[in-house]
Amino acid sequence: MDGIVRRSIEPGAPPGTLAGRAPVGEEALHFTLVEYAADAVEVEEAATVERCKFHLATPEKTWIDVAGRASAQMLNALGDAFHLHPLALEDVFHSHQRPKLDIYEQQGFIVLNDPVYVDGEIKPRQVSIFFGENYVISFHDADEDIFRPVRERVLRTGSRLRRKGIDYLVYALVDLVVDRKFPVIEKVSAQLESLEDEALDRPTSATLKRIHEARRALMAFHRIQWAERETVLSLMRPEVPFVIKETRTYMRDCFDHTVAVMELIESYRDMANGLMEVYLMDTSNRMNEVMKTLAIITAFFMPLSFLTGIYGMNFETETGNMPELKWPFGYVYFWCMVAVIVIGLFLWMKRKRWF
Amino acid sequence: MDGIVRRSIEPGAPPGTLAGRAPVGEEALHFTLVEYAADAVEVEEAATVERCKFHLATPEKTWIDVAGRASAQMLNALGDAFHLHPLALEDVFHSHQRPKLDIYEQQGFIVLNDPVYVDGEIKPRQVSIFFGENYVISFHDADEDIFRPVRERVLRTGSRLRRKGIDYLVYALVDLVVDRKFPVIEKVSAQLESLEDEALDRPTSATLKRIHEARRALMAFHRIQWAERETVLSLMRPEVPFVIKETRTYMRDCFDHTVAVMELIESYRDMANGLMEVYLMDTSNRMNEVMKTLAIITAFFMPLSFLTGIYGMNFETETGNMPELKWPFGYVYFWCMVAVIVIGLFLWMKRKRWF
Amino acid sequence: MDGIVRRSIEPGAPPGTLAGRAPVGEEALHFTLVEYAADAVEVEEAATVERCKFHLATPEKTWIDVAGRASAQMLNALGDAFHLHPLALEDVFHSHQRPKLDIYEQQGFIVLNDPVYVDGEIKPRQVSIFFGENYVISFHDADEDIFRPVRERVLRTGSRLRRKGIDYLVYALVDLVVDRKFPVIEKVSAQLESLEDEALDRPTSATLKRIHEARRALMAFHRIQWAERETVLSLMRPEVPFVIKETRTYMRDCFDHTVAVMELIESYRDMANGLMEVYLMDTSNRMNEVMKTLAIITAFFMPLSFLTGIYGMNFETETGNMPELKWPFGYVYFWCMVAVIVIGLFLWMKRKRWF
Amino acid sequence: MDGIVRRSIEPGAPPGTLAGRAPVGEEALHFTLVEYAADAVEVEEAATVERCKFHLATPEKTWIDVAGRASAQMLNALGDAFHLHPLALEDVFHSHQRPKLDIYEQQGFIVLNDPVYVDGEIKPRQVSIFFGENYVISFHDADEDIFRPVRERVLRTGSRLRRKGIDYLVYALVDLVVDRKFPVIEKVSAQLESLEDEALDRPTSATLKRIHEARRALMAFHRIQWAERETVLSLMRPEVPFVIKETRTYMRDCFDHTVAVMELIESYRDMANGLMEVYLMDTSNRMNEVMKTLAIITAFFMPLSFLTGIYGMNFETETGNMPELKWPFGYVYFWCMVAVIVIGLFLWMKRKRWF
Amino acid sequence: MDGIVRRSIEPGAPPGTLAGRAPVGEEALHFTLVEYAADAVEVEEAATVERCKFHLATPEKTWIDVAGRASAQMLNALGDAFHLHPLALEDVFHSHQRPKLDIYEQQGFIVLNDPVYVDGEIKPRQVSIFFGENYVISFHDADEDIFRPVRERVLRTGSRLRRKGIDYLVYALVDLVVDRKFPVIEKVSAQLESLEDEALDRPTSATLKRIHEARRALMAFHRIQWAERETVLSLMRPEVPFVIKETRTYMRDCFDHTVAVMELIESYRDMANGLMEVYLMDTSNRMNEVMKTLAIITAFFMPLSFLTGIYGMNFETETGNMPELKWPFGYVYFWCMVAVIVIGLFLWMKRKRWF
Repeated sequence: MDGIVRRSIEPGAPPGTLAGRAPVGEEALHFTLVEYAADAVEVEEAATVERCKFHLATPEKTWIDVAGRASAQMLNALGDAFHLHPLALEDVFHSHQRPKLDIYEQQGFIVLNDPVYVDGEIKPRQVSIFFGENYVISFHDADEDIFRPVRERVLRTGSRLRRKGIDYLVYALVDLVVDRKFPVIEKVSAQLESLEDEALDRPTSATLKRIHEARRALMAFHRIQWAERETVLSLMRPEVPFVIKETRTYMRDCFDHTVAVMELIESYRDMANGLMEVYLMDTSNRMNEVMKTLAIITAFFMPLSFLTGIYGMNFETETGNMPELKWPFGYVYFWCMVAVIVIGLFLWMKRKRWF
Repeated sequence: MDGIVRRSIEPGAPPGTLAGRAPVGEEALHFTLVEYAADAVEVEEAATVERCKFHLATPEKTWIDVAGRASAQMLNALGDAFHLHPLALEDVFHSHQRPKLDIYEQQGFIVLNDPVYVDGEIKPRQVSIFFGENYVISFHDADEDIFRPVRERVLRTGSRLRRKGIDYLVYALVDLVVDRKFPVIEKVSAQLESLEDEALDRPTSATLKRIHEARRALMAFHRIQWAERETVLSLMRPEVPFVIKETRTYMRDCFDHTVAVMELIESYRDMANGLMEVYLMDTSNRMNEVMKTLAIITAFFMPLSFLTGIYGMNFETETGNMPELKWPFGYVYFWCMVAVIVIGLFLWMKRKRWF
Repeated sequence: MDGIVRRSIEPGAPPGTLAGRAPVGEEALHFTLVEYAADAVEVEEAATVERCKFHLATPEKTWIDVAGRASAQMLNALGDAFHLHPLALEDVFHSHQRPKLDIYEQQGFIVLNDPVYVDGEIKPRQVSIFFGENYVISFHDADEDIFRPVRERVLRTGSRLRRKGIDYLVYALVDLVVDRKFPVIEKVSAQLESLEDEALDRPTSATLKRIHEARRALMAFHRIQWAERETVLSLMRPEVPFVIKETRTYMRDCFDHTVAVMELIESYRDMANGLMEVYLMDTSNRMNEVMKTLAIITAFFMPLSFLTGIYGMNFETETGNMPELKWPFGYVYFWCMVAVIVIGLFLWMKRKRWF
Repeated sequence: MDGIVRRSIEPGAPPGTLAGRAPVGEEALHFTLVEYAADAVEVEEAATVERCKFHLATPEKTWIDVAGRASAQMLNALGDAFHLHPLALEDVFHSHQRPKLDIYEQQGFIVLNDPVYVDGEIKPRQVSIFFGENYVISFHDADEDIFRPVRERVLRTGSRLRRKGIDYLVYALVDLVVDRKFPVIEKVSAQLESLEDEALDRPTSATLKRIHEARRALMAFHRIQWAERETVLSLMRPEVPFVIKETRTYMRDCFDHTVAVMELIESYRDMANGLMEVYLMDTSNRMNEVMKTLAIITAFFMPLSFLTGIYGMNFETETGNMPELKWPFGYVYFWCMVAVIVIGLFLWMKRKRWF
Repeated sequence: MDGIVRRSIEPGAPPGTLAGRAPVGEEALHFTLVEYAADAVEVEEAATVERCKFHLATPEKTWIDVAGRASAQMLNALGDAFHLHPLALEDVFHSHQRPKLDIYEQQGFIVLNDPVYVDGEIKPRQVSIFFGENYVISFHDADEDIFRPVRERVLRTGSRLRRKGIDYLVYALVDLVVDRKFPVIEKVSAQLESLEDEALDRPTSATLKRIHEARRALMAFHRIQWAERETVLSLMRPEVPFVIKETRTYMRDCFDHTVAVMELIESYRDMANGLMEVYLMDTSNRMNEVMKTLAIITAFFMPLSFLTGIYGMNFETETGNMPELKWPFGYVYFWCMVAVIVIGLFLWMKRKRWF
C-alpha cells in the first residue's frame, strides 16, 4: 500500500506529544552548521547542539542542517535549545505531514517532501525547514546529503546566496527540493516507456499490474505535488515574515517549476491511462481473434462431418437407398463435395472479411 | 443501507419539536461534572441536573459531559436548566446531524461525528458540544466514555488544559473526536488489505460484494469527514466568540489532522477502486481462458472427428472406393494422419501464442 | 419523459404574457384567508377576492392561501387586486419555474417545489409565495391542502407564529415545503430497497429498467433540490426585505434541512448506481457461467465422440487392422478408455478451478 | 462535423480585417428601419443606407434591422456610416462568434445565437446587436424575419416597448432570441422520443448513430447556450451603459429563461445518455441470448451424438461385445436412453434458470 | 511520448543557470532589427548585437527579432547587452516553458507557444517576447520567419502599427501567434476527418492507434492553449506596464480568439472521443456477428449430425430394430427429416430475429 502513511497518535493526547510514531531505528543525528555573512563563512560538520545554540544567538546568518530522524527526547531537547514550536516539532517527529507553511510568532515552518521512486512506489520523505530573522534550521532523512549543492554555493565567495538575506537561503532550499522532483519523474517516465514497449509487444498480466502500480505511484506523487505547489504559492504572499519583495520574484520562478512538475505528472498520468486502454484493447482483440478462429473451424468442419455422417448411415442399399454408395466413383464424388463445401465457405467468409 | 440515516420529522411541526425520532431505548443519562480552575479541580460522577445547574452559575470553568440519548422530556428539562437553544436541542435529539458549527447569541454549538466501523459499515454517532463564556456541555452516546483522556488531562495539575481558558477545552474535545478517526481508518485499511489478498488469490463473488461494501463505507466516511473539516475550519474564524487567537493556532493543527484523515480516506478509496478493477480484470481473464480452452479443444477434435467420419463411411469398396480401408496398414496410416494433424495444429497454435 | 417540463411561450411575446401554457382543466380557485395578530385570529375558508383585497389593506397580518391553478383572466384579476408583479404572475401561471427568490420593489417572491413520486417519476408541483410588509399570499396545486399544519399552528393561541412577524410565517411555509421532501425520499428509498432485493435475488430486464427510472427520478429530484437549497440560502441574506435577524436563525435551521435532503438524495443516487453495477455484474457472471458450462460439455464429449468415431471406422479387420474390434473384451476396453478420459478431464478441470 | 465552425483568418492580418471568410453567396442586404417615440412610429422596409444614416442622427429612437450576410465592402461602408467598431464588424463578418457582450466607448455590442436544428445537427446562426444612446442596429441571416414579433409590438400604440427607452428594445430583442430556443429544443425532444421508441422496440445500428448525433447536437447546443447565459448575465451588470435599473429586472427574467433552456438541454442530454445505455444493454442482452442458445443446443446434442457414436461402433458382437445391438428391443432401449438424457438435461437447465 | 518535454536542470543550481538543456545544434542566431516611428522606418536584416544595442538606446521604437536557439554564452551576452532578467533568460534557454506573463521591474516578459502538428504529434515551439518602454525583443525557432506578416505591416506607411505605441506591436505579435493556431487545428481536423472515414468504412487496429494519437495531440494542444488563454487574459489587466487602455480593447479581441481556439480543440476532442466509441462499437458488433454465425451453424448441423448418427448405428435389423433402414424409401425419408429440421430451425431463428 504505497504512498499511504498511517499515523497512530493516541486520540486525546495533548498536542505536541512526541509519541506513537512507528518505531524507527534510533539514528545519531548529524548536525551541519553553517554561519555566514557577505564576507565570511564558517562550516562545522558534526556540530554539537551547544555549538549550534551558541551560533543561533550571534548576529550572523546561521543555517543548521539536521540529518536523520530524531528520537522524542532529542527533539524535545532541540526544541528547547532552538525555540521551536511544539506543534511544529510534532510534525517533524511524525514526518508524514503533507507539504504546508505554518507561521508562528517569530518563526516560519515549512514542510516539503522529497519522495523517492523505488520498486514502483513513491516513498515520501519529509523535509522540514524552520526559519527566523537570521537563521534557518532544516531537517531531513539521513540517507542522502540532499542540501550539499546549496552548501557549496554558500561557500563560494560573492555568490548571490552569500550577499542576500536569510530569505534567499530559504528560497534556495525550497527550490532545491522542488527541482529534485525532476529526476524522480525521469525515473517514472523511463519505467512507463519500458511498459509501453511491453504493452505493445507482448503484454502479460504482470504488465497490467505494473501499469496499475505506476498509476498509483503517479497518483500519490500528484497528491504530494499539489500540496507542495500550494505551499510555494503561500510562501509568495506578502504577509509571510522575513521574506522581502525581491526574493518573491525568485519564489515565483520556483512556483513555475512546481507547476511544471504538476504538468509532467499529469502528462504521465494521461500516458499511463492510455497504456491501460491499449492493454485492454489488446486483450479484447485477442479474445475476438480466438472467437473468430473457433467460428471458422466450426463452420468448416460441421458441414463436412455431416457429410461423412450421411455416408456412414446403414440404409439398405439393396432396396435402392443411398445409390451413391454403389457408384464406382462414389468416393471421388464425396471428395468433390468436400472441395465444393470448403471453397464455398472460404468465399463466403472472404466476403464477410473474416480473413 | 449503511450510512444513510432517515429523519421523520412531521412536516409543518414547529421548529425545535422533539418528536418523530426513531424510538431508542430510554437510557438513564449519566452526567459527569468537572469544575476546574488553574489551581483547583473537582470531579463529580453521576451528578444530578441540579448540581450541574448550580455549578454552571459559578465563575469557575465548568464542563458537563452527558452520556446517553435523552428522551424528549429530559432534553427539554436540560434545555431549560442550561439555557440551550431549542434548534440546537432538536439537533441533539435527532442526532443525525452532519457536523457543523452554529453560533447563537451567548452560545456556540458544535456538532461532530464519532463513527464506528462495524460489519463493513460506517455507523455515525453524533457528538454535540455547547460552549459559552465559562462552560462546556458535551453530549455523546452512552456505549463509550470517549472523553476520558481529556478528563484525565484536566485532572493533572499544571497541564495546559488547566491553565488555559474554556476555548482550549473545546479545542481538546474537538481534537479528540478528530483523532478518534485514525483507529477507525486503521480498521478499514486492515479490511481492505485482507480483501486485496483475497482478490489476488481466490476471488469469489462475495469478494466483490465486500469490496463494494468497503467503497460505500468509505463514501459515507468521506461525507462525514468533509463536513467535519468544514466545521473545524469555521471554528478558526476570528468571529467565533470565546475563542482567543492562541487557541486558533492549535485549531489549525487540528484542522491539519482533519485534512490528513481526508487524504487517508481518499487514498483508501483509490485503493478500493483499484481492487474493483483487479477483480473485474481477473473475471475477464478467466473468461478469456475458458474461451481459449474451448477453442483449442474444438480445433483439435473437429478435424480428427472428420477423419474418423471419413473412414466410417460405407462406400462399396468392391468398386475400388476407399482403397485405404483395405490397405494392410490402413489403421497405422490413420494414426499417422492423426499425429500429423495434432502436431500441425500444435505448431500453428504455438505460433499464434495460444499456449 | 419524467421531470422535464416543456414551456411553449410564443417567442417575442411581451414579458408577463399569460398564454401558451399546456391547457389545464379550469379549476375554481379556493381562497383561504387568515388574518391574525398576537391576540386574535380569524379564518375564512372559501373567501372571495374582494374579502381578501379588503383584509390585505388592514394593518393585521394577512395570509391568503390560493389552491388550484388559475386561468389567465383570474390571475390577471388577482395580480391587479393584490398588486403582484407581472413577471412573477407569469411564473405562477406557467408553474414550471425552478425554485428561486425574486425581490421586487415592495414584495418578495419565492418559488419552491413540492414534488410527488408517482409511478417511478418525480412530478414537480410549484408552490409560489408572495410576501410583503404584513401579508403573505401563497399559491399551490389544489389536490392537497399542504399548508394545513401551519394554519393549525396559527390558530393555537400563544404559538410562536402568532407572536412573531410575517417573516416567521414565510419561514414556517418554506420550512414546511422543505420538510415535505422527507416523506417523498422515504418512498424513493422504499422503492430502491425492493429493487435491491430484486436485483440480488432474481433480476430481470424489467429490474434494469426500473433502476434506470429510479436514477432518473433521483436526478430530477436533485435538480429541484439544488435550486431550492440556493433559494433558502438567498433568503438568509441580510438584504432580503421584511426578514429580521432572529428569523434568519430559523432560516439557517431550514437550510440545514435542505442540505440534509441533498445528502439523502445523493446517498440514494450512489445506492442506485451501486444497484446498476450489481445488476451488470450479475449479468456478466451468468454469461460467464453459460460459457463455462459450454466449454465443459465440449471438453468432455469431443474426445469421447472421437473415440466412438475411431471404432466406427470400417477398416478391414481381416488384414489385421483395428485388432481391438476383435478382442473378446473390446467393448469393456472401450468403456475403460471412456472412464480414463472422463476422470482425467475431471481432474484437469478441478486443478483449473472450473468447478 | 456539425456545430464546429472553422475560421480561416490569415494569421498576422491586422485586426478588423474583413477577409478569409468561407465564401457566402453575395446577398443583397435588406434594411428595415423603425423610428419611434412614445407617440409616433414610422417603419420603412427596404430602406437605403442613406435613409438609415439620416435617421440615426435624429433624436428619436431608431432601430435598423439588417437581414442577410454582408460582403466585406458593404460592411465597411456600413461601419463608416453607422460608426461601428472595426473589431465588432469583424465579428459580424465572420459570424461564427460565440455569444458575448462587448462594451466599446459609445456603443454596446451583443453577439447571440439563433441556432436551427436540421438533419440532426445544430446549425448556429449569429445574431449581432449594436446599441447606443438612442439606436439599435441588429444583424441576422436573411432566411427568416426573426424580429417580426418585436416590430409588431413596437407598432402597437401604448405598448411598453413604445413607452420605454432603447434599453427595453435591446431587452426585447435578446429575450426573443432566447425564447426562440424553446421550439428548437422541442424539435430535439421529439427526435429523442422517436429514438426512444426505436431503441426499445427494434434497435438497429442506425439507431445508435442517430443517438450519437443527437448527443453531439445537444453538446453543441449546450456550448452555445452556456455562452449566451453568460452574455445575458453580463448585460445585467450595473456598469453596462444605457441600461437602466428597471430594465435589469426584465433582464433577470430573461436570464431565468436562459437557465431554463440550459436545464432542458441538460435533461435531454441525460436522456440521450440513458438511451445510449439502453441500446448497449440491449445489444449485450441479445449477445447473451445467442450464447445461451448455443450452449443449450450443444448441451443437448453432444451427449446424444456420443450415444449414437457408441452404437455405431463396429466391435464384433460374436465375441459378446456390445450385446445391446442384438437385443430385440435395442432400438427402443436407445430411444429410452435419449429420452432420459433429454429430460435430465432439461431439468438441470431448469434448475439453473436457463429457461 | 509527444508533447511531454523533459527538463534536466541540476537540482540545487543557482536560478538563472543556463545549463542542462538537451543539446541542440548550435545555430547562428539571426537578428532582424526594425526601428520605426510614425513617419520613418528602418529594417536591418542580419544585424549585429552591437547595432541592436545601439538602437535600443535611441528614443525610436525598436523591435529586435531573434531567430534560432542561442547557446548559453550567446544568451548571457545578449542578456547583458539588452538588460534581460536572468530568470527570463533561463526560460528562453530551456524553451519548454508553458505560456505565461512575467512582469519584472522595467520589463514585461511573455512566453507563448507556436506548436506544429507533425506525424500525429503536437510539437511545442516556444516564442518569447520581452517588452519595455520603447522596445520589443522577440525570440523564436529558426525554421520559420513567423513574424514576417507583422514586419510587413510595420513597413506600410500609415498603418496602425506605425502610428501606435510599442504596446500595439506587442499585441500584434501575440495576436499573430494566437491566430497561427487556426491552421494547426485545420490540420488536426483534416486528420480526424480522414480517420472518421476510415473508422466507418474499414477500421483496423492501426485506426485505433491513430485515433488514440490524435486524442493525445489534442490533449497536449489543450494544455498549451489553456495556459496561453490565461496569459492573454493577464495581459489585459490594468496593472501591466506600458499597455494603454485602447490596446486592451484589441487584447480583448485577441482573447476572444484564444477562447475560439479552445472551443475548437474541445469540439475536436469530443469528436475524437466519438470516433473511439464508433470504433469500439464496431468491434463489438463484429464480435456479435461472429458469435451469431457460430451459433447458427451449430444450431443447424448438430441436430442433423445426430440424425446421421442414428442411422449409422449398428443395431441388428433382423430382430426388427431400426425398421427405417429397410424401408424402400428410407433414404428419401431421411432427407425429408433433414428438410423438416432445416425449415423448422429457419423459422424459429427468423422469429428470434437472428437473420
